[in-house]
Amino acid sequence: MTTVAAYAAPAAKAPLERTTIERRAVREHDVLIDIKFAGICHSDIHQAREGWGEAIFPMVPGHEIAGIVSEVGPGVTKYQVGDRVGVGCLVDSCRECDNCKAGAEQHCTGGSVGTYNAVGKDGEPTYGGYSEKVVVDENFVVRIPDGLSLDVAAPLLCAGITTYSPLKHWGAGPGKKVAVIGLGGLGHMGVKIAHALGAEVTVLSQSLRKKDDGLKLGADHYYATSDPKTFEELAGSFDLILSTVSAPLDFGAYLGLLRTGGALVNVGAPEEPVALNLFSLIGGNKTLAGSAIGGIAETQEMLDFCAEHGFGAEIELIDADQINEAYERVLNSDVRYRFVIDTATI
Amino acid sequence: MTTVAAYAAPAAKAPLERTTIERRAVREHDVLIDIKFAGICHSDIHQAREGWGEAIFPMVPGHEIAGIVSEVGPGVTKYQVGDRVGVGCLVDSCRECDNCKAGAEQHCTGGSVGTYNAVGKDGEPTYGGYSEKVVVDENFVVRIPDGLSLDVAAPLLCAGITTYSPLKHWGAGPGKKVAVIGLGGLGHMGVKIAHALGAEVTVLSQSLRKKDDGLKLGADHYYATSDPKTFEELAGSFDLILSTVSAPLDFGAYLGLLRTGGALVNVGAPEEPVALNLFSLIGGNKTLAGSAIGGIAETQEMLDFCAEHGFGAEIELIDADQINEAYERVLNSDVRYRFVIDTATI
Repeated sequence: MTTVAAYAAPAAKAPLERTTIERRAVREHDVLIDIKFAGICHSDIHQAREGWGEAIFPMVPGHEIAGIVSEVGPGVTKYQVGDRVGVGCLVDSCRECDNCKAGAEQHCTGGSVGTYNAVGKDGEPTYGGYSEKVVVDENFVVRIPDGLSLDVAAPLLCAGITTYSPLKHWGAGPGKKVAVIGLGGLGHMGVKIAHALGAEVTVLSQSLRKKDDGLKLGADHYYATSDPKTFEELAGSFDLILSTVSAPLDFGAYLGLLRTGGALVNVGAPEEPVALNLFSLIGGNKTLAGSAIGGIAETQEMLDFCAEHGFGAEIELIDADQINEAYERVLNSDVRYRFVIDTATI
Repeated sequence: MTTVAAYAAPAAKAPLERTTIERRAVREHDVLIDIKFAGICHSDIHQAREGWGEAIFPMVPGHEIAGIVSEVGPGVTKYQVGDRVGVGCLVDSCRECDNCKAGAEQHCTGGSVGTYNAVGKDGEPTYGGYSEKVVVDENFVVRIPDGLSLDVAAPLLCAGITTYSPLKHWGAGPGKKVAVIGLGGLGHMGVKIAHALGAEVTVLSQSLRKKDDGLKLGADHYYATSDPKTFEELAGSFDLILSTVSAPLDFGAYLGLLRTGGALVNVGAPEEPVALNLFSLIGGNKTLAGSAIGGIAETQEMLDFCAEHGFGAEIELIDADQINEAYERVLNSDVRYRFVIDTATI
C-alpha cells in the first residue's frame, strides 16, 4: 500500500479538498502510474454531487488520466517504467462476456469497474485521477503516443473516445456532412475528430459566441440554433449529427436536419426523458442512437489517430486548489474547452 | 378516359359505398391494370377517416394492388398485356432527386404521388385499388412472380415491403435474434420474412392468443408483453426488434431487450409523441430507428424473395360490400391477418 495525496469530495455536494488515499501494492499485472495530468469531465461533477444517484464517499473523481509508468508487476508485458500512458473511465471488467471479448468493455455485462465511484473486484473502492498516483491492471491502460503532450492527451481518455467512437461507427468521413451539437468539452473534440476523419463539419451551437474558435478547430460552418432560420436553411442536410449536449433538445427539429437514412447520435444526454414523435424517424428512415465512451482497444486507436493528426484537446491548465472554482465554471459552460489539473500541484 | 366501378368514402368518416370513377387514357409509358385483388391496410382507415389530417374526397383507398395488365402505352418496355403485376403506395415521384436516383422513391424530396388521397402531376386526384382498373406509369409497377397467387401477393405491396426493407437493412439473417412486436398485418409478414431470412424469430404480442399462429408462421418463440417476466427473461437478447404496432410503447422497456449495439425499428408508430429516456440508448450503444415502406426496385426484390420462399400474406378474402365491416374488424385487431377485397365483387 502507498499513501498518496489526492483531492476528494468528502460527501455529496461538499467542496473537494486535499486529502490522502491508499493505493494498493502493485500486483502481478498491475502498472503504477505517476499521474501528471487529470481532466475534469462534467460527469465528475454529476457524480461528486450525486446527480446520478447514490455515490461512494470520500470520492476522488477523474477518469481522464495521463502519466508515466513508475513500476510494473512481474506479469506485465505491455508497459515498462518510463512509458507514457493513460487511463480512462474503466479500470476492470469481467473479461469473459461477449462484450468484453468483442472489445466493448464499457458494455461489460459481467460487471465492469469504474475508475472512481466504484468498488473493485478486491472489494475496495476505486479512486480516480485527481491524485498523485494510481495502480491499474495493464489491460486497462493505454499508451499515449510520443507526439501527444500529456496535458492535452488527458481529456482524450473520455472526451476523445466518447466522440471518436460514434463518429467512426456512424461513418463520418470524406463526402459526409456531419453536424456537432454543442461546442464544449465533448463537442470541441467532436469537431476536431470529424474534421480529421475528412467530413464536412458544421457546428450547431446556441449562439455564435464561439464561432471563431469553432472554425479554427476545423468546422466548415457554424450556425446558431437560437435562430429559427438555421432549421429551415439546414433542413435535410446532414448524414450524421452528434449531440454532445445534455439539455433536452427538440429532437423533432434536429431530426429534420438529417438526410434520408441519416443518424442523430447522442453522447450527452438529458436526465429527463424527451418527447419524441416517431414519425420524425419513419419519414426519411432516420435513426436516433446512443453511444457510450469506447472499448480499450478503440481508445488506443483514437489516441493513435489524434497523434497522427497532431492534435489533443484544447485545455485550461489549473492547479488543484482551483478544482472547485473550475466545477462552477464547467456548470456555467465557461471553459475553453477542458480543465486539466496539473497534479504536481496537489 | 374509362369509367370504372369503385368503392369510395364520399366524405371523412362516411361509410364507403359503391360508385364510379374515371381512369385516364393510357399514355406513352402507362400500363392499364385490371385489378384482381386489393388489400386493406390500416392506413386506408386512417386516411378515409382523416386521422392523419385533411384528405381528398371522394376517396378510393387501396395501395396493395394485384392484377393483370390489359393495355400498355406505346413507350412501355417492361410489361405486356397479360402480365401479373402489382402497385404499392406510390404511383409517381420526381425521379430526379438524390433519393429517387438512389431507388428510395418513397423518400422523394421533389414530390412523390401517393396511390390515392393525392394529386398527380396532371393535377387530377389519384384513386386507389378498391376499384376495377387503374392506370399507372410502368416505372411504378412491379411484377408479381408466377409462384405467388395474386390474392396473397396483394398485401405484400405495403405490409410486405414495410417489414422486408428494415429487416434487410438492419441485418436480420442467420445467427441473428429478431423480435417482432405485434402480430397483425405488418407483424405477421415481419415474422415470415425474418424467418425466411434465416433469423431466430420471437414474437412479442400483448397476449398468447395468437401463439399457435405465430409459431406456424415461422416464429421460434412467442412471449406475452402483458407478463412482466417477459422483460426480465428476454433482457439483452435481441439484435433487432421490429415494432409493427401503433400503440405508444414503453420504449425504455423494449430497448432493454436489445443486446449491445442492437436496433429497435419502428414501422407502425403512435400518433402521439412517446417519452424516451436517452440513457436507454446510450447504455449499450443502442439505436431507435424508423422505416417507411421501400423503393420500387426493393419492392420487386421483396416480391421475388417471397416467391422464392413460397409465401404470400395470410388473408381473409372478402367481397366489396364487406369493406365497412372489415374496417371495424381491423380497428378491433380482429383479422388474421389481412383483409383482401376480391375486386370482381365491386
